[in-house]
Amino acid sequence: MSKVAIVMGSKSDAEVVRPAAETLKKFGIPYEARIISAHRTPVEAHEFAANAAQNGFKVIIAAAGKAAHLAGVIAGSTTLPVIALPVLGSAFCGLDSLLSMVQMPAGVPVACVAVNGAENAGLLAVQILALSNQTLAEKLLAFKKEMADKIIADDKALIGKL
Amino acid sequence: MSKVAIVMGSKSDAEVVRPAAETLKKFGIPYEARIISAHRTPVEAHEFAANAAQNGFKVIIAAAGKAAHLAGVIAGSTTLPVIALPVLGSAFCGLDSLLSMVQMPAGVPVACVAVNGAENAGLLAVQILALSNQTLAEKLLAFKKEMADKIIADDKALIGKL
Amino acid sequence: MSKVAIVMGSKSDAEVVRPAAETLKKFGIPYEARIISAHRTPVEAHEFAANAAQNGFKVIIAAAGKAAHLAGVIAGSTTLPVIALPVLGSAFCGLDSLLSMVQMPAGVPVACVAVNGAENAGLLAVQILALSNQTLAEKLLAFKKEMADKIIADDKALIGKL
Amino acid sequence: MSKVAIVMGSKSDAEVVRPAAETLKKFGIPYEARIISAHRTPVEAHEFAANAAQNGFKVIIAAAGKAAHLAGVIAGSTTLPVIALPVLGSAFCGLDSLLSMVQMPAGVPVACVAVNGAENAGLLAVQILALSNQTLAEKLLAFKKEMADKIIADDKALIGKL
Amino acid sequence: MSKVAIVMGSKSDAEVVRPAAETLKKFGIPYEARIISAHRTPVEAHEFAANAAQNGFKVIIAAAGKAAHLAGVIAGSTTLPVIALPVLGSAFCGLDSLLSMVQMPAGVPVACVAVNGAENAGLLAVQILALSNQTLAEKLLAFKKEMADKIIADDKALIGKL
Amino acid sequence: MSKVAIVMGSKSDAEVVRPAAETLKKFGIPYEARIISAHRTPVEAHEFAANAAQNGFKVIIAAAGKAAHLAGVIAGSTTLPVIALPVLGSAFCGLDSLLSMVQMPAGVPVACVAVNGAENAGLLAVQILALSNQTLAEKLLAFKKEMADKIIADDKALIGKL
Amino acid sequence: MSKVAIVMGSKSDAEVVRPAAETLKKFGIPYEARIISAHRTPVEAHEFAANAAQNGFKVIIAAAGKAAHLAGVIAGSTTLPVIALPVLGSAFCGLDSLLSMVQMPAGVPVACVAVNGAENAGLLAVQILALSNQTLAEKLLAFKKEMADKIIADDKALIGKL
Amino acid sequence: MSKVAIVMGSKSDAEVVRPAAETLKKFGIPYEARIISAHRTPVEAHEFAANAAQNGFKVIIAAAGKAAHLAGVIAGSTTLPVIALPVLGSAFCGLDSLLSMVQMPAGVPVACVAVNGAENAGLLAVQILALSNQTLAEKLLAFKKEMADKIIADDKALIGKL
Repeated sequence: MSKVAIVMGSKSDAEVVRPAAETLKKFGIPYEARIISAHRTPVEAHEFAANAAQNGFKVIIAAAGKAAHLAGVIAGSTTLPVIALPVLGSAFCGLDSLLSMVQMPAGVPVACVAVNGAENAGLLAVQILALSNQTLAEKLLAFKKEMADKIIADDKALIGKL
Repeated sequence: MSKVAIVMGSKSDAEVVRPAAETLKKFGIPYEARIISAHRTPVEAHEFAANAAQNGFKVIIAAAGKAAHLAGVIAGSTTLPVIALPVLGSAFCGLDSLLSMVQMPAGVPVACVAVNGAENAGLLAVQILALSNQTLAEKLLAFKKEMADKIIADDKALIGKL
Repeated sequence: MSKVAIVMGSKSDAEVVRPAAETLKKFGIPYEARIISAHRTPVEAHEFAANAAQNGFKVIIAAAGKAAHLAGVIAGSTTLPVIALPVLGSAFCGLDSLLSMVQMPAGVPVACVAVNGAENAGLLAVQILALSNQTLAEKLLAFKKEMADKIIADDKALIGKL
Repeated sequence: MSKVAIVMGSKSDAEVVRPAAETLKKFGIPYEARIISAHRTPVEAHEFAANAAQNGFKVIIAAAGKAAHLAGVIAGSTTLPVIALPVLGSAFCGLDSLLSMVQMPAGVPVACVAVNGAENAGLLAVQILALSNQTLAEKLLAFKKEMADKIIADDKALIGKL
Repeated sequence: MSKVAIVMGSKSDAEVVRPAAETLKKFGIPYEARIISAHRTPVEAHEFAANAAQNGFKVIIAAAGKAAHLAGVIAGSTTLPVIALPVLGSAFCGLDSLLSMVQMPAGVPVACVAVNGAENAGLLAVQILALSNQTLAEKLLAFKKEMADKIIADDKALIGKL
Repeated sequence: MSKVAIVMGSKSDAEVVRPAAETLKKFGIPYEARIISAHRTPVEAHEFAANAAQNGFKVIIAAAGKAAHLAGVIAGSTTLPVIALPVLGSAFCGLDSLLSMVQMPAGVPVACVAVNGAENAGLLAVQILALSNQTLAEKLLAFKKEMADKIIADDKALIGKL
Repeated sequence: MSKVAIVMGSKSDAEVVRPAAETLKKFGIPYEARIISAHRTPVEAHEFAANAAQNGFKVIIAAAGKAAHLAGVIAGSTTLPVIALPVLGSAFCGLDSLLSMVQMPAGVPVACVAVNGAENAGLLAVQILALSNQTLAEKLLAFKKEMADKIIADDKALIGKL
Repeated sequence: MSKVAIVMGSKSDAEVVRPAAETLKKFGIPYEARIISAHRTPVEAHEFAANAAQNGFKVIIAAAGKAAHLAGVIAGSTTLPVIALPVLGSAFCGLDSLLSMVQMPAGVPVACVAVNGAENAGLLAVQILALSNQTLAEKLLAFKKEMADKIIADDKALIGKL
């Protein structure tokens, strides 16, 4: 089955990234989690990206904070879809990592999700893979229904509480 | 062949969105351009999204400005990948449309590109479709090489100019 | 008597929203608190909004965080006044939910209050209902006087403390 | 019939405010347009607000730019609903007038619309008045349908253009 | 001797404001601390400001948070210098109170200091009063020297610590 | 009579600063306009500030853009009140010059006015000088009345125009 | 003599970058201007950076806009000082390019100058080279004096103009 | 050997600054840590800067928060490279100190690093000194390799953990 890569710029990003991995697991999608830095291991970053397609990856999730170049750098060396996951830091309320990721110049897109939005990064990967995988597509519909049911149950449980 | 939808919230967005259409054309990908408003035609928005998959769409590009809900609203009614294209307005330097699009809650992702980044919205759609279309994948590699060649030519042309 | 709806996008918003309910209670205005998500239960959101008027609601308070589409989505399917209550999240200092709510395009207004300003959301609903309810109008004047008296008492109590 | 006041802080705001007046006219709602400054004519501002209800006003639209105190100051002296219309200035991309208006402290709400969103300020006034005026309520539904029809027509007209 | 007023919009501002009072005390300047709200006690705010000069005040320090209208409202009803002290709130990192205070329209200035900069609000009042009080002017020079000496001592104490 | 200094960081600031000079002229206050740069002529800046009091200045207006250090640097070398006038530049919507000026550390206050708010810088200087000059105080009251009359006339002239 | 590289991400940056080149020319420092893109020519970017030292470069100026990764990417592959020059774009008032450049993670610094601050990028390179070149150091002192003289002349020329 | 100065505006900055000192120590570069305030000890600041070169300093690191003028003020009185280290404060998420430092006007550059990016301030100083010190240049390469090895080790250690 198609594989997803989850790349983060530093081991300190692991907890923020975890829900992406859990989402992929939940949908039965194989993934590899990696720590690769755009700035500290640029050669590895390029090699990883340039070989990702032939190594069986279909989608790459790249998480980083501050001047978050990782997703853009990877997107520069692959034509696979790259999902950018900005990580919240101590300054700038997330604006630094968001703008560093989302404002890519013409020709080299990334698919940016919310700051610390790891579950959505995982789900977006699932949605992309589901385009050629009917089982996944059905699981996504089921997941969507489950979410709705959860909200409806929460709605019912609220009665008399507020 | 797989079809892409390009949806915009208002006809005033058409010129900003055009490079997305041109990019799809360039890669030979059929698309339909639509004006559907999350707020003014909510029923149409829901119906469009809920039926998009069975109507043959694989990816949806949604462009909107200000409190740009279109991408999120469409994502709420489909499991197809939705590419969010924030449109620059007269206030807030693009921050309103960007944050309205990218900050989606867990469970309903969109894939956000840069403010007014229509070409990248188109390219991201191509990258997603290329995962199951070898011809497209090769065209993307050729496009990437062309871009590099263009930069290299610009680089040579600069000599003595600065 | 006229009824107010308090809708929130997630059960995690309940504590932020509570002062809106308490304010309505204090003024003796019946309300229903609901959890309805613009993205996870879009059909329910539309149905709720489209039927709100005939279900006896006069004003709808809609609270949400991040890319806070709930108020706008509800406003798209009703002509009742919709009060938007942006909820503070962990990133962007409230700017994401505020801009997502307040920057509505022409034709579909919402009435936005401060970030986490639930008491004011409730009061604004009271002010609207008071236009055709003399008792409420008098209660509002009394409330306003009470507030002034409270400040005046605080002012007196400050003497010698600073 | 119930009357709306449109108050602006300076005559330079008149063109930004005009769509509010046009919207009220279109719905057949009588209004009075006033220039009253929270800072330059504070006594007039207070008197206007304190007497607005007994002078037959039901809703007050208050437009101002920069440190836009007008809506809040008026709200301090009336219990009528006050719609705040932030005006875009040359600095801060609208953030100064928006935050000065929307961030009202607990107890004194205003109903804020988008920066330069005068049409929506007018529509919100109509929605509030329509709660006790069935004709207005029907006109709002017709207006909503018209808007939808306009989008649908724009959508059709787009075919082959993009 | 000339008197300073320290006005705050809510008793919750008292701790932020305290260093202003302590600074005035240190320089031997009489002051009165007041809680007056631009929105909850608008009549009192106007009366306080309109009578401040004849009540012996020379300078008014006005502290408020969120949509911080207090300084501007007071400046609207007096020609005394008004020092605006923006108070940090839970959203917007201080930008709401700062912009609400500093961006006053032409004709009605306030003298804005840093967010939560109460000591400087006090010092600015001292500097203004010192223009016609030679003793104060000398105390300010002594205070300035003391500050410099403190830095120089800190500098010496740092040796070997870093 | 007491003299005001108007200092700007660059001759390109002259047109933004002009209304400050015009305001002082209107009130009959002598002033000297200077170009002194905190960064390019630091010695002159220090000397100017350190000697300003004995050279007969009572208030210093300091205008600068970008990383606007001029007001703070002058305030570091004088105990006279320093009015900071932030100048709008091409980037950051005025936020760079505003924050560089207003966020002074404890001990060294400046009195910040709005971005490009030169008239208010002038008026604030007049208000400060009027504390010990009854004629000026009366002129300020007359000016305030004139402003109010102007608004009231604008208000009347609006009838039937909107 | 030591050589400086001026690298920009796109030929559209050339006019913004020009003052850096002119400054180096004025100081007699040889430079090479290059167009190299972090995203479109990542291999060239890495190779340029990795070989810059042995190719005789001492300092690299890197200019880019939007998600401006160029300076960071180059810094990842060299230990030469890299001066980052953020380029103003149409959205975000320069905040995107500034934060993308300046917020580099620990271990890989860049030396960031102001948005569109090309002259300063050039001067900073000169200052660095002047550390081991006494002639340059003297030229810098002369330049500094010239700047001061220019301000002093502007100051004199202002007399009577404002 | 060449010396680096680490100057901070207040002793409260010491812990933020410490990694700069530790980095210099690690590379065997002598440094002096100083507390000098642009505003409280302006004479000392000027004298320090004006004499820094002849006192054997080659690079100056200047750290400050809020309206962070220290780096710019020092740069005004020396032609040595000045590294600006913005310190995170309680308001504005670091935007005040960053913009106050990085937005220097033409003619007086500083080399700005990330908010609280003290390690990078130290490393940038090392990179500058390494231009004329082959041993340092080699240490930098070794440090870069060490960083890469650390990331690669972290990457291996992650296997099975996420």
